[in-house]
Amino acid sequence: MRPSGRALDQLREIRLETNVNKHAEGSCMARFGDTHVLCTASVEENIPPWLRNSGRGWVTAEYGMLPRSTNTRSDREAARGKQSGRTQEIQRLIGRSLRAVTNLKGFGERQVRIDCDVIQADGGTRTAAITGGYVALHLAFQHMKDIGAIEELPFTDQVAAVSCGIYQGKEVLDLDYAEDSNAAADANFVLTKAGGVVEVQGTAEDVPFQRSQFDELLDLAEKGVAELCAAQAKALGLA
Amino acid sequence: MRPSGRALDQLREIRLETNVNKHAEGSCMARFGDTHVLCTASVEENIPPWLRNSGRGWVTAEYGMLPRSTNTRSDREAARGKQSGRTQEIQRLIGRSLRAVTNLKGFGERQVRIDCDVIQADGGTRTAAITGGYVALHLAFQHMKDIGAIEELPFTDQVAAVSCGIYQGKEVLDLDYAEDSNAAADANFVLTKAGGVVEVQGTAEDVPFQRSQFDELLDLAEKGVAELCAAQAKALGLA
Amino acid sequence: MRPSGRALDQLREIRLETNVNKHAEGSCMARFGDTHVLCTASVEENIPPWLRNSGRGWVTAEYGMLPRSTNTRSDREAARGKQSGRTQEIQRLIGRSLRAVTNLKGFGERQVRIDCDVIQADGGTRTAAITGGYVALHLAFQHMKDIGAIEELPFTDQVAAVSCGIYQGKEVLDLDYAEDSNAAADANFVLTKAGGVVEVQGTAEDVPFQRSQFDELLDLAEKGVAELCAAQAKALGLA
Amino acid sequence: MRPSGRALDQLREIRLETNVNKHAEGSCMARFGDTHVLCTASVEENIPPWLRNSGRGWVTAEYGMLPRSTNTRSDREAARGKQSGRTQEIQRLIGRSLRAVTNLKGFGERQVRIDCDVIQADGGTRTAAITGGYVALHLAFQHMKDIGAIEELPFTDQVAAVSCGIYQGKEVLDLDYAEDSNAAADANFVLTKAGGVVEVQGTAEDVPFQRSQFDELLDLAEKGVAELCAAQAKALGLA
Amino acid sequence: MRPSGRALDQLREIRLETNVNKHAEGSCMARFGDTHVLCTASVEENIPPWLRNSGRGWVTAEYGMLPRSTNTRSDREAARGKQSGRTQEIQRLIGRSLRAVTNLKGFGERQVRIDCDVIQADGGTRTAAITGGYVALHLAFQHMKDIGAIEELPFTDQVAAVSCGIYQGKEVLDLDYAEDSNAAADANFVLTKAGGVVEVQGTAEDVPFQRSQFDELLDLAEKGVAELCAAQAKALGLA
Amino acid sequence: MRPSGRALDQLREIRLETNVNKHAEGSCMARFGDTHVLCTASVEENIPPWLRNSGRGWVTAEYGMLPRSTNTRSDREAARGKQSGRTQEIQRLIGRSLRAVTNLKGFGERQVRIDCDVIQADGGTRTAAITGGYVALHLAFQHMKDIGAIEELPFTDQVAAVSCGIYQGKEVLDLDYAEDSNAAADANFVLTKAGGVVEVQGTAEDVPFQRSQFDELLDLAEKGVAELCAAQAKALGLA
Repeated sequence: MRPSGRALDQLREIRLETNVNKHAEGSCMARFGDTHVLCTASVEENIPPWLRNSGRGWVTAEYGMLPRSTNTRSDREAARGKQSGRTQEIQRLIGRSLRAVTNLKGFGERQVRIDCDVIQADGGTRTAAITGGYVALHLAFQHMKDIGAIEELPFTDQVAAVSCGIYQGKEVLDLDYAEDSNAAADANFVLTKAGGVVEVQGTAEDVPFQRSQFDELLDLAEKGVAELCAAQAKALGLA
Repeated sequence: MRPSGRALDQLREIRLETNVNKHAEGSCMARFGDTHVLCTASVEENIPPWLRNSGRGWVTAEYGMLPRSTNTRSDREAARGKQSGRTQEIQRLIGRSLRAVTNLKGFGERQVRIDCDVIQADGGTRTAAITGGYVALHLAFQHMKDIGAIEELPFTDQVAAVSCGIYQGKEVLDLDYAEDSNAAADANFVLTKAGGVVEVQGTAEDVPFQRSQFDELLDLAEKGVAELCAAQAKALGLA
Repeated sequence: MRPSGRALDQLREIRLETNVNKHAEGSCMARFGDTHVLCTASVEENIPPWLRNSGRGWVTAEYGMLPRSTNTRSDREAARGKQSGRTQEIQRLIGRSLRAVTNLKGFGERQVRIDCDVIQADGGTRTAAITGGYVALHLAFQHMKDIGAIEELPFTDQVAAVSCGIYQGKEVLDLDYAEDSNAAADANFVLTKAGGVVEVQGTAEDVPFQRSQFDELLDLAEKGVAELCAAQAKALGLA
Repeated sequence: MRPSGRALDQLREIRLETNVNKHAEGSCMARFGDTHVLCTASVEENIPPWLRNSGRGWVTAEYGMLPRSTNTRSDREAARGKQSGRTQEIQRLIGRSLRAVTNLKGFGERQVRIDCDVIQADGGTRTAAITGGYVALHLAFQHMKDIGAIEELPFTDQVAAVSCGIYQGKEVLDLDYAEDSNAAADANFVLTKAGGVVEVQGTAEDVPFQRSQFDELLDLAEKGVAELCAAQAKALGLA
Repeated sequence: MRPSGRALDQLREIRLETNVNKHAEGSCMARFGDTHVLCTASVEENIPPWLRNSGRGWVTAEYGMLPRSTNTRSDREAARGKQSGRTQEIQRLIGRSLRAVTNLKGFGERQVRIDCDVIQADGGTRTAAITGGYVALHLAFQHMKDIGAIEELPFTDQVAAVSCGIYQGKEVLDLDYAEDSNAAADANFVLTKAGGVVEVQGTAEDVPFQRSQFDELLDLAEKGVAELCAAQAKALGLA
Repeated sequence: MRPSGRALDQLREIRLETNVNKHAEGSCMARFGDTHVLCTASVEENIPPWLRNSGRGWVTAEYGMLPRSTNTRSDREAARGKQSGRTQEIQRLIGRSLRAVTNLKGFGERQVRIDCDVIQADGGTRTAAITGGYVALHLAFQHMKDIGAIEELPFTDQVAAVSCGIYQGKEVLDLDYAEDSNAAADANFVLTKAGGVVEVQGTAEDVPFQRSQFDELLDLAEKGVAELCAAQAKALGLA
């Protein structure tokens, strides 16, 4: 019933390719099917002014889409002179999600910037960005440990994200663009490996959804995130 | 245990004052305790280009905070030359929430703009804006009906919003600023009178929260929104 | 002969409501008939760079209109990304007017920001802003005195403002929108209680006006400002 | 007593050089002593949307200062990305002043843009701009008459501007920078040849000025504008 | 002597991978060693206003660098709110270069936008962009021919670009970043397969270079462009 | 054959008027026929952050066109809120050209800003700007020497610029607007008195040009720049 022929609770093919950029301290090309997001982690010694002398570091994220990552070309945000509300919403979400599993006191007064650039889009770019962003951040922390800047990775948990939605009356996992653009409702879930809820963003497009449906979406998300966490561990050589 | 002395499941004092602006087709000053949001609804005959000849109208929202609505003065967004990511996120949320209960084919090719301006802030400005925005929109549609522009109010349901969060380990309803700035997690729920879920935005600040906690927050929200819907009906003279 | 039925030299109903904002050091809702301007005074410890180590403080103002404060909704300046020339002209005027009666050496190296936000407009918003801005500033200085930050209020005089114009061939005081939009000429006068001229801005709309007419407008303004100063004193509990 | 040795009621050397630009329909380099403002008038066939089919034309102005027109170099407004409040205030003033002596129904649905660019500044740039702008506009209308586009010049009067101020306790005419930066008060007067008042902008810098002083400034301005009108007429070959 | 061990007249490894984007009408990942530029061609039916009813089409280009494409992370232009002078210079160059070999009358009133996004930078990004941009444009025209929109490819010649410079006193071909940042002079040459000069941009960094040196750089460029044209033909399946 | 009647290798009338601005440390009105560019040099004691404590100074340039310097009025860049790509390209070129003949270690940690403002345009504004900018810079350095700030002028050579192009099949020197707008190709050459090449920017408009043609353009440029260097020396009283 799904355009891709997937089962209702089946993720797209997930590929998390590491070290794809020669300059960044950590990098990952996250592919959820035809959605490809390049995530790089850049470690900087300077920190936002409001954190100086706090003993804490910061993790932040930026997000962008290449103009022709989408089916119809979009205007370049740099040419328009400002980032859209959607872009800002997504990059704030990515930053919060990664900070939720990071001990900000564990890597000194440094800032790690996660850049998530959508090379090709087919739905679910923010969830691929969070999932790949975690891998890039992990590699950057590993690099800092390797060069002796920190003693251990400052993670408190592992995080990944997936979207779920109601498509043709059914709850489905990991919507692609064909589904997303016709879904009655969709939700993004950012969950940790340990089962915690970091972020939930559910939106009804046409008609409100019922609480029972929302529960089923969360069930699907828990299954999907468990698989994504396993893929992250494998990409990082930890599994 | 709450700074305000409220019970865990108790809303702040809710006041929805109607017709507070002599120019707007609909207006409401929504007060959730010390949070005061002025909501106006402006009916315009012109419509976004992508809706021309579609037979549909549009409802959109803008949000702003007066510089000294907050404890510490914030820069004026007009002076800085751009709206923050937070502002854009909130105004998109308000617009989606109101459209979710509106039949866009029911009021011609017109646009209704809801302006939500925070006169004084004490936590929960977006939920007050949605709750008051519904009242302003209702009054504007009533005005259109009174002048014969439409035959019936194009609503499919009634909508209101409230925040819930985990404060000192307890789930509480309708956080004020003192609670919000110390909450472990908080969530905004936009629900309909009929019990549908329009939007859920849950965010863990420090540590992820558990699924069971999230369920309890939703229980609180259902109670709070029922009371808010009753207050809306009363303000509109419908109850 | 005036649309409102007022006498030629009659002000609109003036209401200056104090302490309308729980956060600001001083605040005043200034109502000139249906023109309502919320004025807040925010005391900041940091000062513009060019005044550091000068022993002087600074008073500055910002001005804005809510989008639906006007009969037809105006675009939000924050959304357009810049303040109009009119806005900048008015906020510079307010700042100059208040500084003209303030001893800048009398409150340390601090800055007081006056925010004047038009909640509802019906002509004369800048004069209401100056008149209410003085009240807010006075309350902020009183607050500083109460907490021991200064020993006496650093005012050299008291200031208020009013518009006058030529409507249907007659000189009239305190134009409302119906008059303002049809006036042959209008002028804004910022005068002190002691009779000094702080600012005069006279503009002929269609045809230049005569010097004798200008003199009559100034006579009207002196009468109006005297009444406004009395209203300020009463609102501040000084009369 | 004046730094320049001028009498209290003496203008600087006034030079109004015409046709200084090979492209513009009218142009004038207006020199008030060391203040040099290049004024060009550009006739355009297209008109602002709100005037279409009104049978009326429009006259508008823009103002700019070259970065090193001032003693200390100022930032280029094009590089900063926005025009200052002062720039906008001045260009609005120039436009209003010229429209006040123009019959907008007398030259078809056309727009004349007056560009006033300060090549060198020594005080009084806005008054030089208005005085030179009138000459440029006159030449452009003369050009339109010469090519048969209009039958007569659509002027209702002749306009010029001058500043006056209180310098070391004395009322003086046409302040230069040395005076302007030390004046207790200054005012700009835009007057017509027939004696009408088009614009008055008086500002007290440190202490308010008295009504009697203001009257003396206006006396000086009337004398100065009469001389400027004579200089305009001579430059235009009308005297 | 070159850091990479290349001969003086040796290009880096050139890879031109086609059809790397599922949405674009034409696409090419151009790799000049470690410099990777993703080029997409988007065909649009609407055209700039000044070309309407001219019977001509238009080819234009945009250029961007991902923030961490460089060794040290650069600010995102979309976040800064404007494109740098360098970005604008490069995208204008790419557009002119491609238009110089395109018959603008040969593909109807359509616009082709070439987006060149630097995924990883190691010197020579603009020359890789032009070389890959030609391939993307060729594929887009081929696509238009395949669907019957045009009858033949509207090219008048084939174009590619390469940089040359003076490194440690020697003329070298195709500078990488290690060379570029230490070159005494460098020049970008855009040449056609038929031997025409489309664009030459030579810049002396520290000391001017001699005319004889400039001639040698052009010799190198002719050799390099011939090889690049062969690589383009091979990638397009034409050789 | 040239619209102006000039010989193929003949410059327009060149006038370099010095000390045209009473404020600037150096200034020159450069006139190439009807192209008039006002160049001022401003010496500033503060330097860009990245040069602090380097022992080096900096020379930079800004460029602008008055709105009616062109035949058809152009929008004011300050009003549009950004500088065009062309403006940025030109001001970067001017800065590089002047730095190429300046010993940046020879005038302390100071910055000299060259402002080049086009008062009237008739083709070749950037070459007039470079040629006049050198004169302004020379005068500013001479001023610094006169007041004892430096001991000798920190020039390593003398620089000037001229455009050449292919007009009606012939190579011509110093294109005016009538030629420039109809040229098949045009190139700007920045050369030193000693014969060095500082910048070459050649662009084919319609069809690529041949290498032999490019050589002829360079021959013409060498002749032109020699004459311009002589004019600079004469204006500076050095010849």
